[in-house]
Amino acid sequence: MTVGVVGAGQLGRMLALAGYPLGLDFLFLDRTADSPAGQLAPTLVGELGDPGLLRELATRCSVITFDWENASVSALREASRGRRVRIAPPLRALAVGQDRVAEKKLFNKLRIPTTRCAAVNSYAALQRAVRQIGLPGVLKTRRFGYDGKGQIVLRTASQLPGAWQQLGAAPLLYEEWIDFDGEVSAIGARARDGTLALYPLSRNFHHQGILRLTLAPWDRPALLRLAQRYLRAVLAELDYVGVLAIEFFVRGRQLVANELAPRVHNSGHWTIEGAQTSQFENHLRAILDLPLGSTRPRGYAAMINLIGSVPAHARLLAAAGVHLHDYGKQPRAGRKVGHCTIIEATAKARDARARRLLRGYYPQLPLIP
Amino acid sequence: MTVGVVGAGQLGRMLALAGYPLGLDFLFLDRTADSPAGQLAPTLVGELGDPGLLRELATRCSVITFDWENASVSALREASRGRRVRIAPPLRALAVGQDRVAEKKLFNKLRIPTTRCAAVNSYAALQRAVRQIGLPGVLKTRRFGYDGKGQIVLRTASQLPGAWQQLGAAPLLYEEWIDFDGEVSAIGARARDGTLALYPLSRNFHHQGILRLTLAPWDRPALLRLAQRYLRAVLAELDYVGVLAIEFFVRGRQLVANELAPRVHNSGHWTIEGAQTSQFENHLRAILDLPLGSTRPRGYAAMINLIGSVPAHARLLAAAGVHLHDYGKQPRAGRKVGHCTIIEATAKARDARARRLLRGYYPQLPLIP
Repeated sequence: MTVGVVGAGQLGRMLALAGYPLGLDFLFLDRTADSPAGQLAPTLVGELGDPGLLRELATRCSVITFDWENASVSALREASRGRRVRIAPPLRALAVGQDRVAEKKLFNKLRIPTTRCAAVNSYAALQRAVRQIGLPGVLKTRRFGYDGKGQIVLRTASQLPGAWQQLGAAPLLYEEWIDFDGEVSAIGARARDGTLALYPLSRNFHHQGILRLTLAPWDRPALLRLAQRYLRAVLAELDYVGVLAIEFFVRGRQLVANELAPRVHNSGHWTIEGAQTSQFENHLRAILDLPLGSTRPRGYAAMINLIGSVPAHARLLAAAGVHLHDYGKQPRAGRKVGHCTIIEATAKARDARARRLLRGYYPQLPLIP
Repeated sequence: MTVGVVGAGQLGRMLALAGYPLGLDFLFLDRTADSPAGQLAPTLVGELGDPGLLRELATRCSVITFDWENASVSALREASRGRRVRIAPPLRALAVGQDRVAEKKLFNKLRIPTTRCAAVNSYAALQRAVRQIGLPGVLKTRRFGYDGKGQIVLRTASQLPGAWQQLGAAPLLYEEWIDFDGEVSAIGARARDGTLALYPLSRNFHHQGILRLTLAPWDRPALLRLAQRYLRAVLAELDYVGVLAIEFFVRGRQLVANELAPRVHNSGHWTIEGAQTSQFENHLRAILDLPLGSTRPRGYAAMINLIGSVPAHARLLAAAGVHLHDYGKQPRAGRKVGHCTIIEATAKARDARARRLLRGYYPQLPLIP
């Protein structure tokens, strides 16, 4: 059984590492052969939307999934037409996840609180949106944003022309700025028959738009119930198959949906060691119609992203219980090149340990938790 | 950093799966390209003792290790001569592990109880050995035995000619037959600087010479101390680097060494989910001079070997908490094609669960535990 994956980054790499023990084979499509996943599985090399390569993927694989949420929906639809290959998650979910406006509409339809926003296709529309929603706010590209890229915070009207000049070439949206107490994500798998496997809540800490630290489980029963209610609604609405993540802002007892990712998610990496079945294995189980695995936590996990470059392995591994995940990437400023996970018996021990490790990894960073 | 591995079976496969998260690359040497490890790492295809291929391995890799304990000691020594590549475990350990007589001599030297035995190189020597050691006893090939192959139990003198005819072409040894209460194995890693990381005791259940079930930790503190004392002695004597396993017979409060394996071991597969650091990761850490990881158990594990063919994945994974390891092998009678591991919070729950699962997998087998 061969699983085709569009994109061969670290998510694809960890997907393959979870799939090999299940006896699966993988075939990736990526721009380069020496990608994180390409180092351990065969890869078709070319553009991710290349019709010929996607057809080859569709011919050689039983199911196609994505490492990269910006995979071309139309090219995938075309490549799978008339073939037995299945695509999961569904292309509709991929399309929604690619467009911030479609995401907001989905959240609104399902009565999931989200920030107010307006689509912006012209400078006049930007002015209208700012009048309507107010300042401060965030001007964002509708598509292809990640790790805080393609976003400008607008605090005064005088910033509008500059921001428009910088981002205006692409379709945009303007979104209200909200204060929040923190960020969490809800992650879960849905099988084709509707069975669910939902993970405990992840508490996420960003710096400069990049996730640095996830603590999970984050024991807030009321918030967990709310997050899982929203997650269930989205999974059902999209007739979803696979793992999906929703990021929320926390405001007191409320959750405000920020965005969704129709794929395994950085804030779920802790599940590799921290849950009975990892998000990667459950994604594969879901898209292959295998029974979903238990999401029960195995202690309290902290996941720290390694940004820019991986510190010396000997140093990282000298700390007891540190699970290293090196993605096999070349170092580059701001790049996610790996992560480390620790598991402790209590939330308190985990938080203390995470704080200590974080200080070691990012001495220049303000203390996050 | 590329790790060269002689042999690309399931041990090599699990070694690669443990090494990729550490950012390692692998290069295997095996007779076929579609081996368990060859499915997920590049492979040089040819005989395992091929001087040219071993030289290529030695040139392209930082360190060479083995998936197969019968790798050619002399060919490896020759291939590494004058090159910077390191070989670990040391070739002396490999040589000892390949010869049952050398093993017994080592155990005797270190005052580790073992069965009485005699080398047998002629029919007259076999008769002498049987007179000296008595009946019943086991006639075994000195080399290349595994999973009970190359062994004949002798109960009466009348069996001698037949047994000699069957096995006499190879160097043999004749060993006393001993009754025992059970079998355990001690597994541990040793770093170049002598640091040790020893795992809890594994209790092993065989059927028709093939390991079927391992329960670990097997909480017998006195036996664990004894087993680890013996393991430490062997690791030190061999100036060992990497993971080594010793199988023992249990006789009351005594342990009788049966054999050693200078590599990761089937009875240590439970450590993938059941210990903080798996035997595979600790083997890699040891041979790469990285700090050894904690061997602390994460609950009580049972590992069940899948023999012959892997049952339907959907059926296996329907049972909560079953971790499947499919080696990607073609089915064949008596072949180890995969294993499953479960972890429970107590030994009692684990034993009950293991018994239930075992009944499902091997309904034809006498109930082992």
